[in-house]
Amino acid sequence: MRATVMYGAGDVRVEDVPDARLTEPTDALVRITRACVCGSDLWPYKTMEHDDAGRRMGHEFIGVVEAVGADVRNVKAGDVVVAPFAYSDGSCIFCHEGLHTSCLHGGFWGRDGVDGGQGEAVRVPVADGTLVVLPVAADDALMPALLTLSDVMGTGHHAALAAKVGPGKTAAVVGDGAVGLCGVIAARRLGAEQIILLGRHPDRIALAREFGATDIVSERGEEGVERVRELTVGYGVHSVLECVGLEQSTLTAVDIARPGGAIGRVGLPQELAIPAAQQTFYRNVSVGGGVAPARAYIEELMPDVLDGRIEPGRVFDRTVGLEEVPEGYRAMDDRDAIKVLIEF
Amino acid sequence: MRATVMYGAGDVRVEDVPDARLTEPTDALVRITRACVCGSDLWPYKTMEHDDAGRRMGHEFIGVVEAVGADVRNVKAGDVVVAPFAYSDGSCIFCHEGLHTSCLHGGFWGRDGVDGGQGEAVRVPVADGTLVVLPVAADDALMPALLTLSDVMGTGHHAALAAKVGPGKTAAVVGDGAVGLCGVIAARRLGAEQIILLGRHPDRIALAREFGATDIVSERGEEGVERVRELTVGYGVHSVLECVGLEQSTLTAVDIARPGGAIGRVGLPQELAIPAAQQTFYRNVSVGGGVAPARAYIEELMPDVLDGRIEPGRVFDRTVGLEEVPEGYRAMDDRDAIKVLIEF
Repeated sequence: MRATVMYGAGDVRVEDVPDARLTEPTDALVRITRACVCGSDLWPYKTMEHDDAGRRMGHEFIGVVEAVGADVRNVKAGDVVVAPFAYSDGSCIFCHEGLHTSCLHGGFWGRDGVDGGQGEAVRVPVADGTLVVLPVAADDALMPALLTLSDVMGTGHHAALAAKVGPGKTAAVVGDGAVGLCGVIAARRLGAEQIILLGRHPDRIALAREFGATDIVSERGEEGVERVRELTVGYGVHSVLECVGLEQSTLTAVDIARPGGAIGRVGLPQELAIPAAQQTFYRNVSVGGGVAPARAYIEELMPDVLDGRIEPGRVFDRTVGLEEVPEGYRAMDDRDAIKVLIEF
Repeated sequence: MRATVMYGAGDVRVEDVPDARLTEPTDALVRITRACVCGSDLWPYKTMEHDDAGRRMGHEFIGVVEAVGADVRNVKAGDVVVAPFAYSDGSCIFCHEGLHTSCLHGGFWGRDGVDGGQGEAVRVPVADGTLVVLPVAADDALMPALLTLSDVMGTGHHAALAAKVGPGKTAAVVGDGAVGLCGVIAARRLGAEQIILLGRHPDRIALAREFGATDIVSERGEEGVERVRELTVGYGVHSVLECVGLEQSTLTAVDIARPGGAIGRVGLPQELAIPAAQQTFYRNVSVGGGVAPARAYIEELMPDVLDGRIEPGRVFDRTVGLEEVPEGYRAMDDRDAIKVLIEF
């Protein structure tokens, strides 16, 4: 089958790999119908050292179940399913606590002999826990929106929860990528009264406004911090959704958090430490969040997607075929595209 | 009057200073009857560069109101009062949210022309918000316990809240100083099922056990982490109360937190960054807490002190007079004493 493999920074190829197939009785074999490129795929795209073995890419997909192992009960051949960006058994102590990314029998796509999502098919481990059946046909117009449940919408929601967004609160979203934009949706959905997006790309800003952002701050660094303070009676916001992961964006998140506020971070941290240990301490700003247990949120968010109350599918502004995936990476890395959908 | 002044590392003196007196109509003048030395006083005691002007010391005290300004309504001459380690007006937006340490008109003792608590008397700014009247006589046997409401008991409670301690949860307390010991009290009071103290001083360990610690881990570093994991089915604890503030203790706190767990930090951070940005991210461990709004907790904790349900006064294991305060610092710095009470 054909699948995406990264060999180093800037070196993404679509090539022949061994066919995905069932190996465990708890596996499902899923033929991919939609996948996409993630902002987090851009980190190795920028920095990965050359590796002859390559790394299978992709962790967001929707597909049709082709076959299931003998122990699989919740999905069957023909089901249209969405997978979260980590697989999980749904039955361990951490899954029961809603932290599926720490599943005792879980893992991540494209590692340890598990296929990546940017390919024709995937072996899905612990399929009963991992997959969620979609109540629509594989070609439904809502597919892009439903695909965001695999990662970016769940991740934006996780950021909002970790940032303790709630009715009447003020929120700021640092980062105008697909996760940041979904963070805007999530903050609005959870009742934030004021939602400030920190971003500077006109197309993303326009979308953020439609998603519910009440204010836009395009200045960076100290100037951006001052602007947020001006917008919040000088105090900063209750909730900061940190959707970038760089030291500078985290420092900005700290500086715009109000005393007693909360930072929900979902941007993959690119540094070894969280800056501003003393500033957060003296202002009692909490830092929470992390890798989002997207699986935990699919059932909660799906009705809103199916009813059109939220439209996270609009973060996709380019569609490619599988063979064009390398061009999709380039477009996202150059910020020509917010997020690239892959149609099979 | 006589008061404690620090001139540099290891250089604490009791000397004559200008008498405390009312300057604002919202002030109260309080004659100190009990004060103490804080673990946080030991940081400057270890590191302060020589300063000819000196720094007035002490931020925990009980006393008798001697006079009040024209605008003071809640306290009157003769009242026995306790003060939290930060003064606050009780009426600003942050005080209303229970974050008195971020009071818009608040501040800290011993700075900006405000007296320190390790002296004969103190001018108390915004007295109506700051002081809490005690329903006992100035020489009551509960004075040591009530004095802990000014800082260490409230700080231990803050750590437990930030660490999200609750019924049935597992907790660990990093640090066996007075705050850590009060953290044990707080964790038990909030219903933790298992309370692991990380400490190595026999007298403190003995007290921790009486306060409710179920397990003691005296090993440090990786060995200590392994030991905590053994005690918690390999997962770590739900709640970590970080009561030290050093990089190593914070790393330990991260390593013993269970996925999805919470670190409540109240140890004054001695580093610029919070270590382990990626470990906390991948395991969704939150880092909360900070400088404790002790004022917010006095009314809640006081009934338990008055009824003897909690006995935080037992952290005091040495009593000195005002002139012996330098010896009190030395004893705490040498770990000859857990916490030193000053009787006037």
